Amino acid sequence: MSENRKSPDLIVGVLGGMGPEATVDFMSEVIGLTDASRDQEHVRMIVDHNPQVPDRQAAMRGDPGPVRRTLADMARRLEAAGAHFLVMPCNTAHAFVGDAVAAVSVPFISIIDTTVQSIREQHPGIRRVGLLATDACIAAGVYQDALRRAGLELTLPDADAQRRSMELIFRVKSGDTGEAVRAAMREIAITLADAGAQAVIAGCTEIPLVLDAVRDGVALISSTRVLASRSVDYATGARALPTDNLTKR
Amino acid sequence: MSENRKSPDLIVGVLGGMGPEATVDFMSEVIGLTDASRDQEHVRMIVDHNPQVPDRQAAMRGDPGPVRRTLADMARRLEAAGAHFLVMPCNTAHAFVGDAVAAVSVPFISIIDTTVQSIREQHPGIRRVGLLATDACIAAGVYQDALRRAGLELTLPDADAQRRSMELIFRVKSGDTGEAVRAAMREIAITLADAGAQAVIAGCTEIPLVLDAVRDGVALISSTRVLASRSVDYATGARALPTDNLTKR
Repeated sequence: MSENRKSPDLIVGVLGGMGPEATVDFMSEVIGLTDASRDQEHVRMIVDHNPQVPDRQAAMRGDPGPVRRTLADMARRLEAAGAHFLVMPCNTAHAFVGDAVAAVSVPFISIIDTTVQSIREQHPGIRRVGLLATDACIAAGVYQDALRRAGLELTLPDADAQRRSMELIFRVKSGDTGEAVRAAMREIAITLADAGAQAVIAGCTEIPLVLDAVRDGVALISSTRVLASRSVDYATGARALPTDNLTKR
Repeated sequence: MSENRKSPDLIVGVLGGMGPEATVDFMSEVIGLTDASRDQEHVRMIVDHNPQVPDRQAAMRGDPGPVRRTLADMARRLEAAGAHFLVMPCNTAHAFVGDAVAAVSVPFISIIDTTVQSIREQHPGIRRVGLLATDACIAAGVYQDALRRAGLELTLPDADAQRRSMELIFRVKSGDTGEAVRAAMREIAITLADAGAQAVIAGCTEIPLVLDAVRDGVALISSTRVLASRSVDYATGARALPTDNLTKR
């Protein structure tokens, strides 16, 4: 017991439920990454676990309005409930986040920017990264923009591998995290390494549920874990919360 | 895919973080118990994951006011955020729930009452149940009252087993869910069966993290799973939400 350790100061607001297991995985990572020996030393999170946010893949092909408005409503509820900053453990949904960012006065910490910054900080020698993400996330270009700003080159799966990756992501969403799905996802990650990627971003929060490594010498960057780690840092004061909103840059 | 299945109607408000892993376990149970094949068919939960609720064991020995007021504040925030009913996946904290129940107009579903009702519904032949719970939960008498109303007899661990059970619960809270903890918890559960219990209630939400069975012929009743199952039933309309507040009875 460490009676003198103080409780983390800031409350994390989580726009969650996209998908359900990914949010639980994010929360588990926050708990596991917190240096705590009793309940009171853990980070407070207010989580709107809302799996009923409209389908993001369909919104990218059609009308993004309902997704954007739903995320803005969630952000407002979380701020009103007391959250000091907001995170959203879903990469694809970051394509629809503009209204949510505008709706609140607390910082909205981007999983995309945070993941790319983490590569620059943790793996400064890396020049080319592979990306596993949904079709909508890739179509939105959010990772492409962040990587370009960071001076990093990008390798995407070829069309066939991307199609298989999407099938696997939706199998995970339906609850299948079995060995066949794991092996198939890893095979796709290895094609990125074969094409020159020195690290692979698990840029969809379903992916770390079935992928924990690529191969020796190629780092796997879990966007879920990076966002969880950063959230713990902000909540505990180990890192200063930005005063500007990262996603407004 | 089941495009015609509708989304669950009601939002579950969760007073969580007591302990952190137990809340994540509760959410995983809700997700696993929901009949869904895509995100939108899952249950929406607004979770105040607040591990910083003051220590419940100390509050039972001293001043319960701060715990009671903290829970009431959490309940109000959850109602304001849109929750249609409230649950709290922590048995011990139910000793301090009066102010929270009084603070809101939505039903507060008791894990204690729900667990005891579940035994009557699922195991109607059972007359004597064992209880694994914290010292504070036992001192508060919440399970004793509910079991008496249901006409069920109670077996508690002897003083030495209860002391060991508390040590194990706090080892789980500190992150230790290893084989030694599992074996020791199961040994205590078996002493309850040996003393005549036909079922054993895991009446602390840390316990299902390290105990999944007692022995053949003796049911293990996870209060976490019972509350999760009931929450899914209410959210999806499979069971009508009570109009009166269960914990106000």
